[in-house]
Order: sequence, then structure tokens, then C-alpha cells
Amino acid sequence: MESLIRVFHTYSCKEGDMYKLSNAELKSLLQEQLGDFLAASNDPMCVEKIMNDLDENHDGEVDFKEFVLLVATLTVACNDFFEGYSQN
Amino acid sequence: MESLIRVFHTYSCKEGDMYKLSNAELKSLLQEQLGDFLAASNDPMCVEKIMNDLDENHDGEVDFKEFVLLVATLTVACNDFFEGYSQN
Repeated sequence: MESLIRVFHTYSCKEGDMYKLSNAELKSLLQEQLGDFLAASNDPMCVEKIMNDLDENHDGEVDFKEFVLLVATLTVACNDFFEGYSQN
Repeated sequence: MESLIRVFHTYSCKEGDMYKLSNAELKSLLQEQLGDFLAASNDPMCVEKIMNDLDENHDGEVDFKEFVLLVATLTVACNDFFEGYSQN
């Protein structure tokens, strides 16, 4: 929990609203912190798709709650994958 | 994400369904991994309340998705607290 909060604010305070991620901040965070995960995807538009999904009101900003929802969704997807893998 | 998955399965495989937390497993996990957090609460019924909230169908088992939802909710609450604290 602590590391999620720390990572979010390390990026969110770089420009604009210190408590929200701009498109550029979100892109840096995803590429630097989830680089391996994104590299495993064959979709070059992956980062852009994530940004569009998260930024529901299209103001170019993502708040902490939306960010945690992304991480929670990715974590459940990873777990489903590993449970399926170990059951086969 | 990796540590959430690892912590969950370390406890969930101890007894019964290996992919779900029994009441006893959830209690150990909360006390051993979130001990400081629970100690800061003055409510001695805190663990029991969390168990009841998570175990919606009262089968005594909590799956990974429900567990991640708890962690996400706690993380957002912590962040709101720190943002409020730094704004004052």
C-alpha cells in the first residue's frame, strides 16, 4: 500500500495538479514501473488504451482512486492467469 | 502486484481451498501483515468486522478478488488521509 502511494505521488507531483497524473506523468509511470508487463504485450497502443480507459472525463488527469483501480484490475488478471496455469 | 499475489497464496494454501482464504487464514494474514495498521485502530472487533464485510456469502471463504478490493479500499483511505494531512 505504501509503495503504491509513494509511486503515484513521485510521478503526480511533476507537473500540474500534484494529486493527479497528467497524460505524460501516467505514461512515464507505466513505462518505468510496469515496463516488463507492457513489453510482454504485443500491442503498441497499450499505454494509449490504458490512458483512455482511466481518464473517463477526458480532462487529461488520472486521480489516485482511478490509478488503484487499474493496479487492482491488473493484479486480479495476473492472479487468474497464475491460478489457471497451476491448475493445468 | 507480485507481493499481493504471493502474500495471499502463502496464507490461502494452508487449509481447505488453496485459492481461498478461510476465516483463520484471513485472520493470520491481517494480523501478521497489517498488524501496525490494526494496532492503530482502537476497535478490538476490527478483524471480525473486516471478515464479515469481505465474506459476503458467509461461506467462511474469501477469494483473491475480494482480498484485492480490501487492499485497494485501505490504500485509497490511506492516501486520502495523507493528502488531507499535507493540505492542512
